[in-house]
Amino acid sequence: MKISVITVGKTASKSISELENDYFERIGHYCNFDSICVPSVKNVKNFSVDELKKEEGKLLLKILDKDDFVVLLDEKGKNFTSLEFAQWIEKQTLNIKKMVFVIGGAFGFSKEIYDRANFLLSLSKMTFSHQIVRAIFAEQLYRSMTIIKGEKYHHE
Amino acid sequence: MKISVITVGKTASKSISELENDYFERIGHYCNFDSICVPSVKNVKNFSVDELKKEEGKLLLKILDKDDFVVLLDEKGKNFTSLEFAQWIEKQTLNIKKMVFVIGGAFGFSKEIYDRANFLLSLSKMTFSHQIVRAIFAEQLYRSMTIIKGEKYHHE
Repeated sequence: MKISVITVGKTASKSISELENDYFERIGHYCNFDSICVPSVKNVKNFSVDELKKEEGKLLLKILDKDDFVVLLDEKGKNFTSLEFAQWIEKQTLNIKKMVFVIGGAFGFSKEIYDRANFLLSLSKMTFSHQIVRAIFAEQLYRSMTIIKGEKYHHE
Repeated sequence: MKISVITVGKTASKSISELENDYFERIGHYCNFDSICVPSVKNVKNFSVDELKKEEGKLLLKILDKDDFVVLLDEKGKNFTSLEFAQWIEKQTLNIKKMVFVIGGAFGFSKEIYDRANFLLSLSKMTFSHQIVRAIFAEQLYRSMTIIKGEKYHHE
C-alpha cells in the first residue's frame, strides 16, 4: 500500500516543519510514502470562511485519485489508541491501493471534501492547532509503522 | 492561581523546545506561570526502569510543595475537550493556590508520584512521544487560557 499525507498551506513554524519532515523521512523507510502541501488560497481577506474552505476543497479534489482511500483528520472522527490505529491501517492494506490522509487548513474542510472522504480520524477529544496537528500526526503515523513491524519504539 | 509545568529531562529536539518555549512565554501573559525542567537521572544504563522512575520521582517530590495541586499527564487520565479542560482549570482556581502539571520521562511515573498526584490528565487515547507531549500540552494550556479569557484563538 502507498500512503500519502496532504496538508493545506505552508507551516508558519520552522519547528513544526522540521519535526514533520523528520518523521516523514522515517516513514519513507517503512512504506511507499509521499507528502504533498497544497498552497493556501490567495486573497483570503475577501473570502468568507465557507468560500475559503470551498476553494481549498477544489484544490484537494484535483489531486485526489478516484481510487484513493481518503482519511480526513477531523475532530468529529474516530478516536483510536495507537495500537488500534496501527491495526486499522494494517487491515486496510488488504483492500486499498493508496491511503491518503488530509490535514486541513485553519477552518477545516468543505462539504465537498466531507462527501469525498472515506473515513474521519480524530487524534484527540482536544482541539490542537492545525499546524501542530501535522507534527503530532507525522509522529503517530511513524509510530503505527513501528507497531506494524513489531519494533520497540512504542511502549504499550 | 499560579500554574507551573514540570518536565523530566532536557528535550533532545530543538524544534520541540522552541515550540514549548513559545507557548510558555505566551501563557505567562495570562497567569502567574513558571516551568521547571528536572534533569534526567544519570548512569541510567545500570538502572532498571523501576529504579529510574523511582529516582526521577524523588527529584520531583523534592520540588513539589505540600499544598500544590499535582496533575500528572498520563494515558490513563481523564480525556477532556479543550473547552472542558479550560472550564475545569477555571473551576479549580476557586480552591487551589498552585496547580502543577507534570510531564514525565520516557517510562512514566513511579508509584510514589501516582500516590502524590491529585489528578490524572490524558491528552489523547493515542500515545504521543513524551517529548512531543510537551509541545502539545504547552499549546493546550495556552488555548485554555484564551478560552477562559474569552479570546478568539479557539474555534469550537
